[in-house]
Amino acid sequence: MKSILRRIILLTQRETELIDITPTVQAEVERSGVRSGTVFVLSLHTTTGLTVNEGLPDLQQDIAGCLERLVPEDRPYRHARFLRSDGQMAINAPSHLRGALLGFQVFFPIEEGRMVSGARQTIYFVELDGPQERTYVIQILGE
Amino acid sequence: MKSILRRIILLTQRETELIDITPTVQAEVERSGVRSGTVFVLSLHTTTGLTVNEGLPDLQQDIAGCLERLVPEDRPYRHARFLRSDGQMAINAPSHLRGALLGFQVFFPIEEGRMVSGARQTIYFVELDGPQERTYVIQILGE
Amino acid sequence: MKSILRRIILLTQRETELIDITPTVQAEVERSGVRSGTVFVLSLHTTTGLTVNEGLPDLQQDIAGCLERLVPEDRPYRHARFLRSDGQMAINAPSHLRGALLGFQVFFPIEEGRMVSGARQTIYFVELDGPQERTYVIQILGE
Repeated sequence: MKSILRRIILLTQRETELIDITPTVQAEVERSGVRSGTVFVLSLHTTTGLTVNEGLPDLQQDIAGCLERLVPEDRPYRHARFLRSDGQMAINAPSHLRGALLGFQVFFPIEEGRMVSGARQTIYFVELDGPQERTYVIQILGE
Repeated sequence: MKSILRRIILLTQRETELIDITPTVQAEVERSGVRSGTVFVLSLHTTTGLTVNEGLPDLQQDIAGCLERLVPEDRPYRHARFLRSDGQMAINAPSHLRGALLGFQVFFPIEEGRMVSGARQTIYFVELDGPQERTYVIQILGE
Repeated sequence: MKSILRRIILLTQRETELIDITPTVQAEVERSGVRSGTVFVLSLHTTTGLTVNEGLPDLQQDIAGCLERLVPEDRPYRHARFLRSDGQMAINAPSHLRGALLGFQVFFPIEEGRMVSGARQTIYFVELDGPQERTYVIQILGE
């Protein structure tokens, strides 16, 4: 059994941003030479999400808008204080909570060397507290 | 290591509908002959969900009702316009957003040829934009 | 390929409670001897969650508070009736719905015998209907 791990670095550009990472995931699956198995994709952060939806700009805006409506900026969060460990004020409770609602990891089967996914399924890395340098991981398990 | 993949087709009957797929998943695990490993279950669509909850009709209604309350029909979504690729108006932004909140994939370990899950854990395929023909995938990885 | 399964029992102390289980998961990965593979962590209940966020007490409170705000106690849920199977009134619809929004399972890659996760990623078992005895499963798949 092979286990191939790639760490992918993204420089996000905006505070909230959905980035289509499907081509990267598919390319890593094909490059791995794994014919059957599973590909796992996960963010290494707690103020980002990783999800699957249709690859349309209007839906990207609706997903961001839905998270902002369900977890508004202006509520009395506890995580809004000076953090000694960070040397600065914590002001990103909404980013953490939006990520918790959306989730941060997905997987897809691999069959005959190709990722099995639906025709409209686009994998999005979701920046919720940008712009920042971010890392996500693609793991390909199989043979 | 074996990787067994099944594509299961469902004809959903209603706009919103939770369908218990636990017996199908368990039967595929047993039929696979895999003694230890993992079973992955995922929807191939972006206006459906796939989740786990207790197998009670009243909870099915509460889950649907909760998603409809958190993502109401009558908001000014961006994904509400003529889609050239579909040849019709997009009117299902809420279906996409409800699926994003609920999630669309789950996994369970396999031990001694049986799926390891809690006594009350029922796997639901969740139609959010039906009725339609839908496909979900069961992958059994192990040996 | 090895598949190592551990069932971990927790006695939760409060109605809602986030319990950091990261050290247990990491210790099981190291104890397994698996050098490369994947670790899966999942709750066996339908009124709990399992998620990842930063390991800060104020965020634990914000996550609990967010779920309580999005799924309030005092709505007319259907799952609020005498359950013959339980011999008592069902009064925990909000616990089921909060768990559905949060999710109940996560995974991480294993590389060179260690779990691959972000510096701020803390794995939380989330009690949503406590106090109770709860079981979650750690499965380590790899070699």
